[in-house]
Amino acid sequence: METLHRASSSCWHPSSSSYSSLPESRNGHMRFGLGLVKVSSISKRTSQRISSRQVRTNPNSNVVRMQDGAVATKIAPIEGEISPMKRLKDGISPTTSSQEGNDLASFDVKKDESTVSITVVGASGDLAKKKIFPALFALYYEDCLPKHFTIYGYARSKMTDEELRNMVSKTLTCRIDKRENCSEKMEEFLKRCFYQSGQYDSKEGFTELDKKLREHEGGRIANRLFYLSIPPNIFIDAVRCASLSASSANGWTRVIVEKPFGRDSESSATLTRGLKQYLKEDQIFRIDHYLGKELVENLSVLRFSNLIFEPLWSRQYIRNVQLIFSEDFGTEGRGGYFDNYGIIRDIMQNHLIQILALFAMETPVSLDAEDIRNEKVKVLRSMRPLRLDDVVVGQYKSHTRGGVTYPGYTDDKTVPKDSLTPTFAAAALFIDNARWDGVPFLMKAGKALHNRRAEIRVQFRHVPGNLYNRNFGTDLDQATNELVIRVQPDEAIYLKINNKVPGLGMRLDRSTLNLHYAARYSKEIPDAYERLLLDAIEGERRLFIRSDELDAAWALFTPLLKELEKKKVIPEYYPYGSRGPVGAHYLAARYNVRWGDLGLEQ
Amino acid sequence: METLHRASSSCWHPSSSSYSSLPESRNGHMRFGLGLVKVSSISKRTSQRISSRQVRTNPNSNVVRMQDGAVATKIAPIEGEISPMKRLKDGISPTTSSQEGNDLASFDVKKDESTVSITVVGASGDLAKKKIFPALFALYYEDCLPKHFTIYGYARSKMTDEELRNMVSKTLTCRIDKRENCSEKMEEFLKRCFYQSGQYDSKEGFTELDKKLREHEGGRIANRLFYLSIPPNIFIDAVRCASLSASSANGWTRVIVEKPFGRDSESSATLTRGLKQYLKEDQIFRIDHYLGKELVENLSVLRFSNLIFEPLWSRQYIRNVQLIFSEDFGTEGRGGYFDNYGIIRDIMQNHLIQILALFAMETPVSLDAEDIRNEKVKVLRSMRPLRLDDVVVGQYKSHTRGGVTYPGYTDDKTVPKDSLTPTFAAAALFIDNARWDGVPFLMKAGKALHNRRAEIRVQFRHVPGNLYNRNFGTDLDQATNELVIRVQPDEAIYLKINNKVPGLGMRLDRSTLNLHYAARYSKEIPDAYERLLLDAIEGERRLFIRSDELDAAWALFTPLLKELEKKKVIPEYYPYGSRGPVGAHYLAARYNVRWGDLGLEQ
Repeated sequence: METLHRASSSCWHPSSSSYSSLPESRNGHMRFGLGLVKVSSISKRTSQRISSRQVRTNPNSNVVRMQDGAVATKIAPIEGEISPMKRLKDGISPTTSSQEGNDLASFDVKKDESTVSITVVGASGDLAKKKIFPALFALYYEDCLPKHFTIYGYARSKMTDEELRNMVSKTLTCRIDKRENCSEKMEEFLKRCFYQSGQYDSKEGFTELDKKLREHEGGRIANRLFYLSIPPNIFIDAVRCASLSASSANGWTRVIVEKPFGRDSESSATLTRGLKQYLKEDQIFRIDHYLGKELVENLSVLRFSNLIFEPLWSRQYIRNVQLIFSEDFGTEGRGGYFDNYGIIRDIMQNHLIQILALFAMETPVSLDAEDIRNEKVKVLRSMRPLRLDDVVVGQYKSHTRGGVTYPGYTDDKTVPKDSLTPTFAAAALFIDNARWDGVPFLMKAGKALHNRRAEIRVQFRHVPGNLYNRNFGTDLDQATNELVIRVQPDEAIYLKINNKVPGLGMRLDRSTLNLHYAARYSKEIPDAYERLLLDAIEGERRLFIRSDELDAAWALFTPLLKELEKKKVIPEYYPYGSRGPVGAHYLAARYNVRWGDLGLEQ
Repeated sequence: METLHRASSSCWHPSSSSYSSLPESRNGHMRFGLGLVKVSSISKRTSQRISSRQVRTNPNSNVVRMQDGAVATKIAPIEGEISPMKRLKDGISPTTSSQEGNDLASFDVKKDESTVSITVVGASGDLAKKKIFPALFALYYEDCLPKHFTIYGYARSKMTDEELRNMVSKTLTCRIDKRENCSEKMEEFLKRCFYQSGQYDSKEGFTELDKKLREHEGGRIANRLFYLSIPPNIFIDAVRCASLSASSANGWTRVIVEKPFGRDSESSATLTRGLKQYLKEDQIFRIDHYLGKELVENLSVLRFSNLIFEPLWSRQYIRNVQLIFSEDFGTEGRGGYFDNYGIIRDIMQNHLIQILALFAMETPVSLDAEDIRNEKVKVLRSMRPLRLDDVVVGQYKSHTRGGVTYPGYTDDKTVPKDSLTPTFAAAALFIDNARWDGVPFLMKAGKALHNRRAEIRVQFRHVPGNLYNRNFGTDLDQATNELVIRVQPDEAIYLKINNKVPGLGMRLDRSTLNLHYAARYSKEIPDAYERLLLDAIEGERRLFIRSDELDAAWALFTPLLKELEKKKVIPEYYPYGSRGPVGAHYLAARYNVRWGDLGLEQ
């Protein structure tokens, strides 16, 4: 009988949900792989995962809970039982892969091994250079990638493998680069990187790629991940070509796409239809990198693993919730793309609404991706569509401070001079369900503001019959408890409480019960892209957006967006580097809310 | 119209409850003072206090809530209204004194002023030198004492005023002594100190004292506070003499007494009867200096002014509560007194049970002393008397460590060789009311343990249906939330929560939401005696023990104490400097509790 021991690698974790590298079986889709995976060919993290659903539904199954909290499966060697290999081949109730791996260890046949190829489509783009390659290297450094993997760059420009490696090596100035053996590891990593040039709508290009992929796969079970780091107008073309010419024949094929997922309900639906011509829903990994942020991941942990929070998580105790995003820079000469979308599409309709849904959802049946996404979509579908009245839009204007002149949005040469595109928006949203009826969820997102931050603020209600009311100032709102989850920068969780100021008197003030990540955890926090890439490789869909979620999110925002454009609503102009349009305060005031991020104490 | 501004003095606070320096009027007792108090003759703190009861019952009264949270009264100068002075003289609805003070500022008549004389009976004792005089000086330094005050030492030894001053000056090595103008202030303070020698049972001695007191009072309204810092067997004699020969003729007379308040229900009742022959209940200030500790004071603030705590404050969410007191030294040659009492009487029956009552009480009608004490006594009366089965007693024995031998309890020359007096006790208590039914309240107190601390630990229940159960180890008890209020040393409040360890995995650990006083507040925390002395001067009884509370506390412990003594229960011996008897763990285990202070993480 095998037991699993906690791996020292930071990559490992004992929780999580799906069968990861195994072929999808739950929905009956995508069974082109046999799922014969050698234990050595998958990551440590993967090998120790097990479905929580399995634990829940099979209480008497072969699950062993270890002393250290790890969970493993045992397969009793009862005679006459079908072998694990047979069971897998027949597609019967697959268990985790570690056991099979060990049982199969004697079969040293290449075709029983699997390999993962990750193709970055749009390899010479900014995102690829700044985020994707560095994240892949970080995963490699942390020993999170499967044993057999290769990385491909695909783009239009002509480049040799060497030139790609040279380009990638320059951009690996990531969080890893000052660590032990970094240059050695980097060398090894770069050896696994290859390049293929081709047009994004060229079947020939992808056929060439397929040839090279097959060469490196060398007869192993071939899993293929495509990261589309290209403009949205060529998404479908690239997906068509990749799917038709470069799909895996015997493993899985997955495609990561990034926003924008359309501009509104219709264009999003068109995109989804286009993608689904060539891909099944569970091959599509719609990335929202905010869902990969450490503190967003922690949101569910905080709420569901701490008794003290869940009882408070409703209209009975929560007065309002604020979701705040601000950047301290403008479009800086790159407003061409932005101007077609605006801040509502760029930040609110995806990042903020996704966090809201995670925050507000009912307790899911399990931590499995489908269970969580089922609950999130219910939140979105319970929300009132946004009314123009409940939205304030703004646009930053030029501002001179300390002798320096900061440009306005329309000073950006890539932006039309008469653009009304909002660079700031504030909105009041409501969830019409039993838990949240009447609780305002306020959102605020903006560029060129006075600071950079992303945070969730939960303001609790007043204490009923508060004995200490007299000890507070006139504004009792300021004296309520507040839970702040600071997503970035400088991750922290703090709970504002009222406390007696030490001394002979009875003066109260607000102190914080504080958890400051930098002070508590010496470890660096991984970039959101690392988490999400790893999840995509492992088939963990929890942090990706399902098409019905996307539809529901667009349904909320589309009427508003159309009205804004149709009525040519003039944004409220605010100076570059300021706290944003004053209108946001009046919007908040209408719902008896005060923005928590603009007070004296934050 | 007058407004009050926040005083810079640390002494000031805008809350609190009673009319302080004004004569007691609510219960109809002790009206020998006229209550004409010049504003300059009372402390800032006092002048800005106002009864919360008054605010509650007279919503339309002359109370003004200030911008900064201070509360003041205004008296509209309506013609025909009776003057504030008249109103006070007639005993009609007194308001706070500040306004009257100002209105009376033109009357410069001595007899309209009041003075406070504080007599420390047992002036040459240890407590007087180490705590009482330094606390009085700190209050003076902080400008908390009334304008007119004098301090008297009373003891058997012959001493001149100069000698007393000399003695006192040596002991003022308090938290003040490194501050600005300290020596100057000390000089002024010492000029107000006088001495009278006399036997504690001598009416003549107290008559002499009375003469001197009157001299200094100089015709003002004379308020007199006696602090009995003498052995309990002479309490009654001293009270008789002080009351008969040195009571104030026209102001209040109050007596502070310290534990022990008897050894059991009977002797405590005898003491109370004795005191009440000469004093009314509201003249008696039974001090429990633990109630003056900053974090014990904060307990009610935390609970009642924060929405997030009160909903959790019951059997529904709290699994157990632990009250822990430990000292890292033994009796050190001074066990004579202790041996007659033991740790249960010395710590549990007063300090810990008082904290428990404050912790567990229902929400009081107001913060007034009587309202709070009414709730506390209800808790005590709802408790099950302690059973011998639910108690573990211990006694420390000699221990050699690093070449140093630490003496056992019975090695103390002042302790009988065969003493069975417990120097350690652990007990499980239960409150049989709707809020706390079935929740174990565990207490632990001991001398000569491995550390010094006093703390309250609240362990919350498991999360029902916890999605993350698999992420914890086998001992789910270790994964529940815990609120720790560290009373001493190094005051802090922290809330243990489960948190995701940053990184790609899903590993949870316990982190703390932390409020560490030393890091948050630059101010020094006043000694408990300062707070309590000031409260006694101001007539604030919230932190003093009423006789029915005392009776209820004794009723809980007396049967146990008698049984322990009758059965000559042998204590479990534990080494000096250790973590105490192992039996405490078995007691806790019986109620599914794990002591929170002895884990790996605390």
